[in-house]
Amino acid sequence: MRDFLPDVARRRNGCIDALRRVFESFGFEPLDTPAVEPLEVLMGKYGAEADKLVFEIAGRGDDASAQSALRYDLTVPLARVVAMHQAELTLPWKRWQIAPVWRAERPQRGRFREFLQCDIDVVGAPAPVADAEVAACAVAAYRALGFGDVVLRVNHRGVVRALCETLGIDGAAAGFLLRTIDKEDRIGLEGVCEALAAGGEGVTLPAGAVPLVRGLFAARDAADVPAALEALVGRAPSAGTALTELRQLWQYVSGSGVVPNARLDPALMRGLDYYTGPVFEAVIPAGGIGSVGGGGRYDGLVGSMLGRDIPAVGFSVGLERLLVLLAERESAAGGAPPSAADVLVATFSHDLVAASLALAAELRAGGLRVEVFPGPPGRLAKQYTYADKRRIPLVALVGSDELAAGVVAVKDMAKREEARVARAEVSGHLRTRLGG
Amino acid sequence: MRDFLPDVARRRNGCIDALRRVFESFGFEPLDTPAVEPLEVLMGKYGAEADKLVFEIAGRGDDASAQSALRYDLTVPLARVVAMHQAELTLPWKRWQIAPVWRAERPQRGRFREFLQCDIDVVGAPAPVADAEVAACAVAAYRALGFGDVVLRVNHRGVVRALCETLGIDGAAAGFLLRTIDKEDRIGLEGVCEALAAGGEGVTLPAGAVPLVRGLFAARDAADVPAALEALVGRAPSAGTALTELRQLWQYVSGSGVVPNARLDPALMRGLDYYTGPVFEAVIPAGGIGSVGGGGRYDGLVGSMLGRDIPAVGFSVGLERLLVLLAERESAAGGAPPSAADVLVATFSHDLVAASLALAAELRAGGLRVEVFPGPPGRLAKQYTYADKRRIPLVALVGSDELAAGVVAVKDMAKREEARVARAEVSGHLRTRLGG
Repeated sequence: MRDFLPDVARRRNGCIDALRRVFESFGFEPLDTPAVEPLEVLMGKYGAEADKLVFEIAGRGDDASAQSALRYDLTVPLARVVAMHQAELTLPWKRWQIAPVWRAERPQRGRFREFLQCDIDVVGAPAPVADAEVAACAVAAYRALGFGDVVLRVNHRGVVRALCETLGIDGAAAGFLLRTIDKEDRIGLEGVCEALAAGGEGVTLPAGAVPLVRGLFAARDAADVPAALEALVGRAPSAGTALTELRQLWQYVSGSGVVPNARLDPALMRGLDYYTGPVFEAVIPAGGIGSVGGGGRYDGLVGSMLGRDIPAVGFSVGLERLLVLLAERESAAGGAPPSAADVLVATFSHDLVAASLALAAELRAGGLRVEVFPGPPGRLAKQYTYADKRRIPLVALVGSDELAAGVVAVKDMAKREEARVARAEVSGHLRTRLGG
Repeated sequence: MRDFLPDVARRRNGCIDALRRVFESFGFEPLDTPAVEPLEVLMGKYGAEADKLVFEIAGRGDDASAQSALRYDLTVPLARVVAMHQAELTLPWKRWQIAPVWRAERPQRGRFREFLQCDIDVVGAPAPVADAEVAACAVAAYRALGFGDVVLRVNHRGVVRALCETLGIDGAAAGFLLRTIDKEDRIGLEGVCEALAAGGEGVTLPAGAVPLVRGLFAARDAADVPAALEALVGRAPSAGTALTELRQLWQYVSGSGVVPNARLDPALMRGLDYYTGPVFEAVIPAGGIGSVGGGGRYDGLVGSMLGRDIPAVGFSVGLERLLVLLAERESAAGGAPPSAADVLVATFSHDLVAASLALAAELRAGGLRVEVFPGPPGRLAKQYTYADKRRIPLVALVGSDELAAGVVAVKDMAKREEARVARAEVSGHLRTRLGG
C-alpha cells in the first residue's frame, strides 16, 4: 500500500475532481458507503478466486458474531444500498462513487492492494439508452483527463453466449473458450486458434470451434458487424435479443457522435460473470498498458439482493493505470511541479509577527495562496531559502519601516527583483506577477 | 457505519471542498496515506484504552507475519510518513489530509465507527508562529463552513503541568485533577470544586488543590491572563517556557485579528497525552454540542519514530459534528435539496435517441448538467414524471419536426410553460431559465 506525497496527491486530487465534474455533468449523483461491509454481503458475488482476496476484519470480543471485511469493489455495495434504501431512492437512479477498495493481491507493477475505483452506474433502467449514456460519460471522463485518443470496445454478453450455444458447450469448456479468446492481445489470432485446437484445462473443444472463432474475429472488420454476427451465430437462442440490443446501441452511439473511436468488437469477452448485456472496455492505444477501464450491463446482481429483477449498467474508470500514464507524460514533458503557495509572508521580528499574519489574511482574501514563514522570526536569508525549497515564487514582508509607510516589500524569487508596493495594491501586484 | 445517499453526500462533498480550499490557501499540501497501517505503527501511541479500539485486519495464510490494522487517526500515519520519507520531504512541512479513520466504539449519537478526520499539521517548526497560523487556518475553516461564531479556546500544556507541579502531584492524582477540571461544562465550577475536595479514583488531593483551581478559573477573566497565571503557578518549573510561549502566541493571535473570538482559557485541558505546548479547542456557542475540533503542539510524537526531536503542531476540524449542525440548520431553513441535473433530454423514439444524445452533449459543452431519459424512448408523460421526481427543472426534446426545423422544444416543469428555441440558442436559453 502506498503513501501519496504532495506532488502525486495533487495530481490524484486533480483527476478525481475532473472525473467528478464529468460524472455530475451527466446527472450522476454522489454516493458514499463505508469501507467495511458485512462479510456475507461480499462473499459469493465475485467468484471463488476473488473471495480469497477479500480482507477480513479480525473478530472482536464484544461483537464477534458481526463478521465484516473491507469492500472489494463498489458494485456490490451499490447493490446493497439499493436493496436497503429502497424507500429513499427513486429508480432509475444514477450514481457515481470514487473511493478506495482493497484486494489481497500479490503486489505487482500497476496492481495495488488499496486502489481507487471510479464508478458510474444507472440502476433501474433497461438497455440500451442508459448503456449509451454510460458509454458517452465514460469517454467524456477519459477526454477530461487528457486521453482524447481513448478507444471504446463494445460487445454484448449475448454474443458470447450465442457462440457457446452454437458450439453446444457450457461450463468448463465455455470458460476455456472465453479465456483463450481473451488472450488475443498477447498471443495473437493464430495463437488463439492453436490454443483452441490443442485444448487445455481438461477441455477438448468441438471441431467447429476454430472456424467459428476465426469468423468471430473476421466479423470485427465487417461493414455491418451485427449482420456478420447474425450469419455466424444467428440461430443460437441468445442471439436474437443480443443482436437487437447491439444494433440499437450501435445506432445510438455511432449516430450521435458522442463516443468517438467506438469499435464494435465481438471478440471482447469482459471476464466478470455478472454481466448480462452490452459490455465495454476502454483502451489507450498509445499507452501500451491494455485496458484502462470497462463496464457493462448486469441485470441480475442488484435484484439478487431483493428477490426481484432490477436492471443495471455501469462503468469503472481505471484511474490507477491512467495515473501511471499521466506521471510518465508529465515527467517526459519536464517542468517543475506546482508550488504549495503563491506567496511567503516573511516575519521580521517577534513584534511584527502579528502584522505578518494580518498581511497574510489580506492576501488570502485577495485570492492568493499564502504561507507565513513557520519558523522563528528574523534571519531573512533563511526565509528566502525556505521559499526557494518550497518553490514559492514571491515573498512579501512588512518591517516597521514598511508598516509606517503603508507599503509592503515584495521579492520575486526567480527574477531576484525587489519592489515596494502600496498596501492597498499589493494583492493585485502579486497576482499580476504570478500571471506573468 | 453509514451510507451517505445523494443529498447528504453532496453536503459532505461541499464541506470537504470548502475545507480543502481554505487549507490550500494557507499553503498546506495534500497527503494521502493507506487506510491500512502496520499494527506496530499504531499500537502504544494513543494509550491503553484507545489501543482496544483499533480495528485489526484478520491474518492471512500467505503473510500472517505482517499484522495490520485500520488507521485510528491521521496524526500517527503522518509521523510514520515523515520518518519513512525524510529524503523526499523538506521541513518545515505543512500538510492537510481529509480521510476516514476507524474506531471500534459503541455507536452513539454523533459518534461513528468510521468517520472523517480533517487535519492540518506543520511538522518541523517550533512554537509559536506556526501555532498561530494553524489557529488562523482552523478558524478560517469554520467560517468557510458557515460557522462565523466559532470560539477558539487557547491554553498551553505547560500551564497544566505547572498546576500539578505547584500541588506536587503527578500520575493518577494529576490525571484525576485534569479530568475533573475538564467536567466544568457539565457540572459547573462548584461541582468541580466539590469533586476535587471529595477525591476519587483512589486519589486524595492536597488541600491547596481547590483554591488553586478556583484561581485557575478566575484567571480566565483577568485583564492579563498570563500575568494572572504567573502569580498563580509562576514558581513551577514548567511555568517559564509555557507562559512565554502563551504570551507570544496571544500577541500574534490577538494583535493580528486573524482569530476573532479567541479566548485564553487556562482551564482548557485537551486530553491527549502527546500534547506538549499550546493547545486549542473550537466551540460553536449556538450548537450545544461542545467541542467541534481541537489541536495543539506535539513535539515528541514525530521524533519518537526517528530518534531525534521534531516539533509539530496540528489541528483537527470535527467535521462530523459540524455536519449534524448543518443538517439541522438546512432542515430548519426548509427548501428543497438541489437537483442532480439542470436539464432532462427526453427521448421521442428509438430512431431519435442518437439525436437526443447529441443534444445532451451540446448542452453539457454549454456548461449544463444534463441527463438523457434512461428508460425506453417514447411515452413523454412518464419522462415528465421522472423529471419531477428527480427535481430536474427543465426538459428538452428533439422530435423529427424539431430536428427538421432546427429547434428544440423546452418545457419548464415548475411554470408548466413550453417553448421552441433555435438550436444555436438553446444552451443560453436554458441557462437563463435556470438563473431566473
